[in-house]
Amino acid sequence: MALKTRFTELVGIEHPIVQGGMQWVGRAELVAAVANAGGLGFITALTQPTPDALREEIARCRALTDKPFGVNLTILPSINPPPYAEFRQAIIDSGVKIVETAGNKPQEHVDEFKKHGIIVVHKCTSVRHGLSAERMGVDAISIDGFECAGHPGEDDVPGLILIPAAADKIKIPMIASGGFGDARGLVAALALGAEGVNMGTRFMCTKESPIHEAIKQQIVANDERATDLIFRTMHNTSRVARNAVSQQVVALEKQGAKFEDVRELVAGSRGRNVYEVGDNDAGIWSAGQVQGLIHDIPSCAELISRMVAEAEALITGRMARMVTRSTVNA
Amino acid sequence: MALKTRFTELVGIEHPIVQGGMQWVGRAELVAAVANAGGLGFITALTQPTPDALREEIARCRALTDKPFGVNLTILPSINPPPYAEFRQAIIDSGVKIVETAGNKPQEHVDEFKKHGIIVVHKCTSVRHGLSAERMGVDAISIDGFECAGHPGEDDVPGLILIPAAADKIKIPMIASGGFGDARGLVAALALGAEGVNMGTRFMCTKESPIHEAIKQQIVANDERATDLIFRTMHNTSRVARNAVSQQVVALEKQGAKFEDVRELVAGSRGRNVYEVGDNDAGIWSAGQVQGLIHDIPSCAELISRMVAEAEALITGRMARMVTRSTVNA
Repeated sequence: MALKTRFTELVGIEHPIVQGGMQWVGRAELVAAVANAGGLGFITALTQPTPDALREEIARCRALTDKPFGVNLTILPSINPPPYAEFRQAIIDSGVKIVETAGNKPQEHVDEFKKHGIIVVHKCTSVRHGLSAERMGVDAISIDGFECAGHPGEDDVPGLILIPAAADKIKIPMIASGGFGDARGLVAALALGAEGVNMGTRFMCTKESPIHEAIKQQIVANDERATDLIFRTMHNTSRVARNAVSQQVVALEKQGAKFEDVRELVAGSRGRNVYEVGDNDAGIWSAGQVQGLIHDIPSCAELISRMVAEAEALITGRMARMVTRSTVNA
Repeated sequence: MALKTRFTELVGIEHPIVQGGMQWVGRAELVAAVANAGGLGFITALTQPTPDALREEIARCRALTDKPFGVNLTILPSINPPPYAEFRQAIIDSGVKIVETAGNKPQEHVDEFKKHGIIVVHKCTSVRHGLSAERMGVDAISIDGFECAGHPGEDDVPGLILIPAAADKIKIPMIASGGFGDARGLVAALALGAEGVNMGTRFMCTKESPIHEAIKQQIVANDERATDLIFRTMHNTSRVARNAVSQQVVALEKQGAKFEDVRELVAGSRGRNVYEVGDNDAGIWSAGQVQGLIHDIPSCAELISRMVAEAEALITGRMARMVTRSTVNA
């Protein structure tokens, strides 16, 4: 079984299911597991401390799979930015064929990747940014709705609207991100005009995901309401799992706190501690609303084959019958 | 052509497309047009000044269609509540067979409607309220996501998550509301576990809708970002079209304004003036994010037949081919 779309054909994978970049999570084991299951995984470049460490991580992933995989490079404004050009060079030198870019002003990076024949998928949270990326020459868009973990942008437009609104204007293939975790969402995304889905939280909660088991269990336990939007007042909104720290940040922001005031609270916590310590309340960690639809911790192979089988059954079974029944009656 | 679901069979309509209650908009002409096109329309009880006026409106609708239609009764907490029991009696006496309830504590009304064999569809914005309505004995749920016009609740869970989360727990048929305006959304809703869609903004923007032509053109002109959430700080969030008044309310709320402080600003405007005056900025008016997907002002018959035809084509065409292509290749 497989689902073929313009996106699967573009990147040469079996199923239109993508594990996009996730800071601290997108490592070789997870990415290779997704690749071996017929999906497309992305190593997160900036999770590696140096460009050389990234070269090693890519090599480690290649040892674990002979299927296509990619690398995510997220460009965020920073006073002391990481050496983006060197990370980019590591990706190019390693012979990676697919890159996911995200963040601001990717033109320089897109140009360089394209010069080396690399397929670029750009992630963005609005139609206008998608159009701008299309003009920059990227090959596909990953359009990310309000539901998503991490940065949903400031427009608060969910996928039900954002995906078709983008599909009305964007000509290159588009995958849908934010709020996806099962076959129902996959089929919905395809109906709305996407050529596949990108999943973050759902892949965090798989056997091969390198986060702490207790956090995976927390995702399973959390319902769709258990997220918070932090940094809203700073116009840098981030959706995180609701916990003691996120609630404290939200409360401080209500009182008018600036980033400097919550930096201490958030600093250590945005790092690896939750992944290594396994304490829900040890710090901020990203999770999307889709956690309300996540009830187990499958392997990536189980997850992807289940999604594809159920999606096919939905399309050719339940939904086709809604049409057929009427034809028979007509 | 038709799409048959558990919901169309429950209420005896051709297509799983519903025009739910809309204050000032849900009048006989629109409701009859939806009914004649094979959908299900609801007259909004409280748009009528008195229970007797509602009786006349129902009679007027019945003169315009011999197909099923319903009446919406929305129960809102109020210091001087309208005579709910008398409106309810007008509905029952008029022989209406389908009622949409919305708002708080509908038990008394549900009991009375069920006693008279009336099918009750309850609209709600969360899984827990849907479960509670199911326990109250309603026949179907209309689950309303964050995208919607009017009251999305305070959970901010969009349909992509809310619909399947509700479908996992609710056993009675469920239609999806909020963010729907075309065939893509309809097919997505069916994939996510709904048995149909409810549309508000989309039906506001039809030939038979009794609102001012200039407001319909404003909906066509607005994109998906042109809405505001007002009364958020009062925990009575309402999604409205962004205009001069909504922006003023949002600004005042940011400065800590209470309802008393904005009442003057909002009071006249929540009435009929926008519908009669046709000035976008004349006052607050409800519109959902789906306005970004609305590009024309069709008749209800054109809208519904186009949606059903395109939905069938999506299911048996584009989506089926994604499966077939893979089977052929396998």
